[in-house]
Amino acid sequence: MRISVLGTGTVGRTVAGRAGDLGHEVAIGTRDPQATLARTDTDMMGNPPFGAWHADHPEIALLRFADAAARGELIVNATSGTNSLEVLALAGAENLKGKVLIDIANPLDFSAGFPPTLFVKDTDSLAEQIQRAFPEARVVKTLNTLNATVMVDPATLAGGDHSIFVSGDDAAAKATATDLLRGFGWRDIIDLGDLSTARGPEMLLPIWLRLMTALGTPAFNFKIVR
Amino acid sequence: MRISVLGTGTVGRTVAGRAGDLGHEVAIGTRDPQATLARTDTDMMGNPPFGAWHADHPEIALLRFADAAARGELIVNATSGTNSLEVLALAGAENLKGKVLIDIANPLDFSAGFPPTLFVKDTDSLAEQIQRAFPEARVVKTLNTLNATVMVDPATLAGGDHSIFVSGDDAAAKATATDLLRGFGWRDIIDLGDLSTARGPEMLLPIWLRLMTALGTPAFNFKIVR
Repeated sequence: MRISVLGTGTVGRTVAGRAGDLGHEVAIGTRDPQATLARTDTDMMGNPPFGAWHADHPEIALLRFADAAARGELIVNATSGTNSLEVLALAGAENLKGKVLIDIANPLDFSAGFPPTLFVKDTDSLAEQIQRAFPEARVVKTLNTLNATVMVDPATLAGGDHSIFVSGDDAAAKATATDLLRGFGWRDIIDLGDLSTARGPEMLLPIWLRLMTALGTPAFNFKIVR
Repeated sequence: MRISVLGTGTVGRTVAGRAGDLGHEVAIGTRDPQATLARTDTDMMGNPPFGAWHADHPEIALLRFADAAARGELIVNATSGTNSLEVLALAGAENLKGKVLIDIANPLDFSAGFPPTLFVKDTDSLAEQIQRAFPEARVVKTLNTLNATVMVDPATLAGGDHSIFVSGDDAAAKATATDLLRGFGWRDIIDLGDLSTARGPEMLLPIWLRLMTALGTPAFNFKIVR
């Protein structure tokens, strides 16, 4: 499948790299490919600049947001929550129309430091904001509740014995997203229901962030024991 | 230990009954014991009236909130979140002074139907509201993230292989609460940190409620796999 990932940060790189390893035809979207490749700084998490990562993944195309979205059959929003609506507008509603749009972003507001707060919650969600702004995209919220490494390869943690959630209004889109998740290795995929249920996994971030501090690692996940 | 549980609903009864079975000297606090015992209706969850339950637990004293709080060495807030501050005021700051106050309540607002929203979240929590209102109580947030049955007997679910959280500003109070949790059978007790970390487990309710709907049962819990 042609998968286009919007966002060049850790989540975008990790999802793109894994999808490419699984045989998908992957592009990464960015604002300005030349500028992205010209960066030489590590990010605040200590990750190498995009160009260094891309040198190891030459099969993954780096395109402008609109070109990446036009090429993809399935689009992944791996941008920061504060930028998501702007980036998706640059990707273009016409390029998202009818396509499955997997939304991994979280509505985190770091303006007052750590832990961040949520800029939308409880009575609305980022996923619903995106769906309203792009009504012809088929938004599925998933993968926003854990670290990128575990996201794309759940078996790296406890043999994969933990859970992932999907929310969305379009059953066929959720089935497509679920197929991708199974390809990553997910076995316990819980369909929470329509897209408004994304409020639940988005509001999981406050405990996720505090668990990361308490446990001293981002390498953990929730298993729904029942 | 003398434990007083404020609240006569399912959570209050379940915690009181289990604490009594474990050999603690337990009282339940209510607004008006005679009125509580005179009720004949089942509640909205189909539970029998308090009197029927109490007939099976005659060793548990039913007292006015203030009398229960005065008698207890450890107090449990098992009231609804909307009533918690009022009930604790009736219990009396002088009767809470210096005592461990385990807060199980959730700030759920059912006024717009199901699923409820949270009336405090993200930048504050019910637990912190309680601590500010009763600064000499030693508030510990715990047990608010799951069904009452599993709360007091985690072994009923997957042999107890799942997690519970504690938050609080007073290390000795958290140790006392942790001892009680171990008595219930908890093994994976995660100390999230100070009381502000209670924002995390309180904001877990939105996904808990949607999981209850998706799974068709309240008999589940989160295991933090790491």
